[in-house]
Amino acid sequence: MPERKDGNKLKKIMNDPSNIVEEMLEGLVKSYPELVHRVESSRVVAKNQKAEQVGLVSGGGSGHEPSHAGFVGEGMLSAAVLGDVFTSPTPDQIQTAIKEADSGKGVLLIVKNYTGDALNFDMAKELAAMDDIEVESVIVDDDIAVENSTYTAGKRGVAGTVLVHKIVGDAARNGASLAELKELGEKVVQATKTIGLALRAATVPEVGKPGFELGEDEIEYGVGIHGEPGYRREKMQPSKVLAKELVTKILDDYSNLPKEAGVLVNGMGGTPLMEQFVFMNDVLALLEERGVNVVFRKVGNFMTSLDMQGLSLTLIDLTETQWKDSLESNVQTISW
Amino acid sequence: MPERKDGNKLKKIMNDPSNIVEEMLEGLVKSYPELVHRVESSRVVAKNQKAEQVGLVSGGGSGHEPSHAGFVGEGMLSAAVLGDVFTSPTPDQIQTAIKEADSGKGVLLIVKNYTGDALNFDMAKELAAMDDIEVESVIVDDDIAVENSTYTAGKRGVAGTVLVHKIVGDAARNGASLAELKELGEKVVQATKTIGLALRAATVPEVGKPGFELGEDEIEYGVGIHGEPGYRREKMQPSKVLAKELVTKILDDYSNLPKEAGVLVNGMGGTPLMEQFVFMNDVLALLEERGVNVVFRKVGNFMTSLDMQGLSLTLIDLTETQWKDSLESNVQTISW
Repeated sequence: MPERKDGNKLKKIMNDPSNIVEEMLEGLVKSYPELVHRVESSRVVAKNQKAEQVGLVSGGGSGHEPSHAGFVGEGMLSAAVLGDVFTSPTPDQIQTAIKEADSGKGVLLIVKNYTGDALNFDMAKELAAMDDIEVESVIVDDDIAVENSTYTAGKRGVAGTVLVHKIVGDAARNGASLAELKELGEKVVQATKTIGLALRAATVPEVGKPGFELGEDEIEYGVGIHGEPGYRREKMQPSKVLAKELVTKILDDYSNLPKEAGVLVNGMGGTPLMEQFVFMNDVLALLEERGVNVVFRKVGNFMTSLDMQGLSLTLIDLTETQWKDSLESNVQTISW
Repeated sequence: MPERKDGNKLKKIMNDPSNIVEEMLEGLVKSYPELVHRVESSRVVAKNQKAEQVGLVSGGGSGHEPSHAGFVGEGMLSAAVLGDVFTSPTPDQIQTAIKEADSGKGVLLIVKNYTGDALNFDMAKELAAMDDIEVESVIVDDDIAVENSTYTAGKRGVAGTVLVHKIVGDAARNGASLAELKELGEKVVQATKTIGLALRAATVPEVGKPGFELGEDEIEYGVGIHGEPGYRREKMQPSKVLAKELVTKILDDYSNLPKEAGVLVNGMGGTPLMEQFVFMNDVLALLEERGVNVVFRKVGNFMTSLDMQGLSLTLIDLTETQWKDSLESNVQTISW
């Protein structure tokens, strides 16, 4: 049984906890060799068919699978770069991803808003400039639960990031320029709002105990994908009450109620699909009551937090945009 | 917070536990209206575009999501019928699915080998005969962990069922006859072997406590998808040891070692993708050592057991078959 540093045992399917990202990465690229490959001696997963388009790179700490490597492929990301669990990838690894993604038209970085990620992706941008690769970035800060948090100044970047991958990925495939993609990405971020909730915290393999403790009948609203604190802890509630809380908070955050919207219900890793669909049923009923016309929906595990039990709700305002078509377009990835 | 019958509280995202399948089903069809719909007043999820082909129907108790409704669509199932949690659908519900799936060319039922399912699908077959619909069935019993079990005579049907959906689904789309599909399905079942393992049991919403208890450092090999007993309980082991146990058991069960094989690593609902990929990495190394050429691979949650932590390994012998092409063909479903 895997040993932790403190000598205790941990019930996870793994070998050496300090090698878990390495082994996961190998398992992933060996499972889908027809779609992706690993750039040699790196933590970069790239798509096999390099296209003549602006490259799209995302990444961050591991533990959020299928983000981001599951979204590498035709119509979404060119490459994803993996840090250790809940730890930003290093600038040189990000630089490797940028080089891999570039086909001469520049590279857009899609970065979740955490201090470490923002810093390292910025440094990689400078390194890439020395290689004469034009690089821009979009910072995703869709989590409206709290301002500032454990690892971030400003709002956190969470599940809405996957919608940014999808919409910007479709535009990149269709020939948009680097400047256009940056502008588009920023508009998508503006339109996208997420809040999560947790029933049980995740356990980081190298730490070996849950990141925070919730009572047997307690939940926490607004928790982040690394177990960062939310905004309220209370007794477990029926799905309808949970849905009402999240839908209300999100709609209140829009200055204009969206006329048309997309909805993503995202499982945190340990939450059965059954519960996610029950929750989505409640969310859709509430949005109908509020007069929001939902034109795109998706349910599943997209931006997880290891084995956390809980979910997040993301809304994207699609009013007067063509983004619905981009969200619905076909892609070739492991996990979209 | 949702109340259980015994008055205790249960930390699941749901409303009334006795209504959970109903609400899940509504959530599912409302999330993917472009792919599937609910047959009115029934527990049947059917694909929107009815094709001129032999209909394919599967189903069973709920709690195994995305099975089977997630596999309804072009190239896989025509319809799925949902029972209550871990409970077979009733014959009249199955009959509704058969009627929906029939386009005049007959209907093949793909049934996991549990006593209740076998009985009810058989009765539905008789009901369909009265409607002059030709119906055949394939019984899937891919779980080689144990002979006979809590709800079954003979072996249990588990994750390999999804491969049967895929291969038979592709042949049906390409115009195979009912007799041909039955023969094909039975050959695929013969070639397919699965074993699971559990780190933590599932909790049925209406029961409110785990189906079995494992010690903090204990796992069980060979557990079924309803928490049926496996063949051995022992201390938690590293992923490599778990993989060795399952790979060896499965390969030993083939009378000829497969020259070419497909591999499915299936999460049980509460197991992070990270752990599934680590495990797959170990499985692929072992198969390489044994000289098995793996030509198809898939990793994720396909046949779950609510929130069970654990996974299953499925091998399918692809030597001298064209099934690889069918496994790789494009489909339009929620979850393949």
